Amino acid sequence: MPATQYDVLGIGNAIVDVIARTEDDFLVKHGMNKGTMALIDEPRAEAIYASMGPAMEISGGSGANTIAGVASFGARAAFIGKVKNDTLGKAFTHDIRATGVTFATPPASDGPSTARCYVLVTPDGERTMNTYLGAAQNLTLADINEGDVAAAGITYLEGYLWDPPHAKEAFRKAATIAHGAGRKVALTLSDAFCVGRYRDEFLNLMRTGAVDLIFANESELKSLYETADFDTAVTALRNDVKLAVVTRSEKGCVVVSRESNEVVKAAPIDKLVDATGAGDLFAAGFLVGLARDQDHRTAAQLGALAAAEVIQHLGARPETSLKALAQDNGFTI
Amino acid sequence: MPATQYDVLGIGNAIVDVIARTEDDFLVKHGMNKGTMALIDEPRAEAIYASMGPAMEISGGSGANTIAGVASFGARAAFIGKVKNDTLGKAFTHDIRATGVTFATPPASDGPSTARCYVLVTPDGERTMNTYLGAAQNLTLADINEGDVAAAGITYLEGYLWDPPHAKEAFRKAATIAHGAGRKVALTLSDAFCVGRYRDEFLNLMRTGAVDLIFANESELKSLYETADFDTAVTALRNDVKLAVVTRSEKGCVVVSRESNEVVKAAPIDKLVDATGAGDLFAAGFLVGLARDQDHRTAAQLGALAAAEVIQHLGARPETSLKALAQDNGFTI
Repeated sequence: MPATQYDVLGIGNAIVDVIARTEDDFLVKHGMNKGTMALIDEPRAEAIYASMGPAMEISGGSGANTIAGVASFGARAAFIGKVKNDTLGKAFTHDIRATGVTFATPPASDGPSTARCYVLVTPDGERTMNTYLGAAQNLTLADINEGDVAAAGITYLEGYLWDPPHAKEAFRKAATIAHGAGRKVALTLSDAFCVGRYRDEFLNLMRTGAVDLIFANESELKSLYETADFDTAVTALRNDVKLAVVTRSEKGCVVVSRESNEVVKAAPIDKLVDATGAGDLFAAGFLVGLARDQDHRTAAQLGALAAAEVIQHLGARPETSLKALAQDNGFTI
Repeated sequence: MPATQYDVLGIGNAIVDVIARTEDDFLVKHGMNKGTMALIDEPRAEAIYASMGPAMEISGGSGANTIAGVASFGARAAFIGKVKNDTLGKAFTHDIRATGVTFATPPASDGPSTARCYVLVTPDGERTMNTYLGAAQNLTLADINEGDVAAAGITYLEGYLWDPPHAKEAFRKAATIAHGAGRKVALTLSDAFCVGRYRDEFLNLMRTGAVDLIFANESELKSLYETADFDTAVTALRNDVKLAVVTRSEKGCVVVSRESNEVVKAAPIDKLVDATGAGDLFAAGFLVGLARDQDHRTAAQLGALAAAEVIQHLGARPETSLKALAQDNGFTI
């Protein structure tokens, strides 16, 4: 098998986050489900923006956040996703390349504008997201560079890719290329409502071996198996996929494999500022650990460390070098 | 004298900050003077952006930050400044209006794009700024709404307005209207290099009574009087203006009036994250105190509180309600 060119290649929706602090009342008034992501059309995007508080714009997108995190750990990273050639698209492109990620997907020159996610952060640090997919809807098979996917140790896909009409074909093509080259494929379930929309398809991907590694949080896992009982869901998960990590916020995570369930603690934090990106950055650390042949526990600890960094400030991308942070915490990566 | 419609009306450059963390090496390599603001043209703006790290976009502009702070204290605030009708201009407009500020300056429909300031935050929390003035250069006399200025208790002007070619005329017109209506005029000296560019004009504004209140930090004050001795500069300042506040970072501030020098402590912080906006938010608190007929010490304490909030996160606008923060700290505003 040829040497890898990238440790991790991610495919996801290329999104700029528009982040504002808000009170819980605002969510209720606008019919939002706290802690989840809703897809919105352009008129609703305009309406939400008009009524929300002062915001900041930071590059986001679940998979893109993960890949930026992978690069911040000093690993070799690439990303595939669709922006438009507009102001926000240029900012997204600048930001992901500036972290050291290879990002070569050609931007759309016409059609809808670059995707935006209105992220509303309540005083408890929880985030509620409203995504206008815009240009991200136009990711197609043609955007999957076969050579790049074949040269990546792990191809990482976000469940949200099931929302745009053509992206799931791109997703399947990438998984096939990766496995054909003897590489691994990872999938994050993204969001409990996303799981609700695509439950059967996600289970099928797992059961047919199209994905080797699943990332899920507790509510996504329970949604996947339509059960309120965590242990029941974990048992089902073990039968459906070779390796999975279930994140449980401050309770840490469980690495689920055919052999064992391994519980790993969360990393300590001073104050939860904004939960956005916690799962994305956990995945970054775990993927870097796997790519560097660390054991599952160490990989999960790297994930926990990255998640702890990102939830202590606004925005879903690391504000410090995760490589330096890991080294300061005694990891050798 | 008719009742005021606004506690404070600000006039300044309407700017979106593009903020990135960086190492000191970057500043040296690009010939930047740490802790100061440099004006740049579009090619240099492109070059800096291409080489700087991942960024976030947050509405900024020194005077606009102050006015957003005034509104966050629950006071009545208005702002005059020029954006273009582009993506960043719409974000600026949204953000300042969302804080409760009246902002009615018509955007430019053609010409240069909305002003951007590349803010580079070094590990010590200091910020170094590079401003592309863009559309902000086109603020003219016609943008000064006479009724609004006459109806504002205090008109607040930024020294940076001396940089765009026509804004100083707008500045002088506003000061004349304000005084004609029996209102107060405040000026911030903005930056030591800005003082270097316009020293004689600023001194003239003070000595002719065109401004009633000066905000300066220690380096701006020393630049104004071309002396390295703080006490010498303060003595000169007392003779030139009725009231002034000199901010000294962690050493607090000195309120200088004909009667006395009053020293007020800085508010405690946990960690300096980003010094951007410290002076702007200090001015916000002080202006609110004045507008609410508080004594100088209390006004300075409100300023110190607002400055402490803004330097503990990235970006130069408050992330929390300053009114609630002031009340939690025992102030009645």
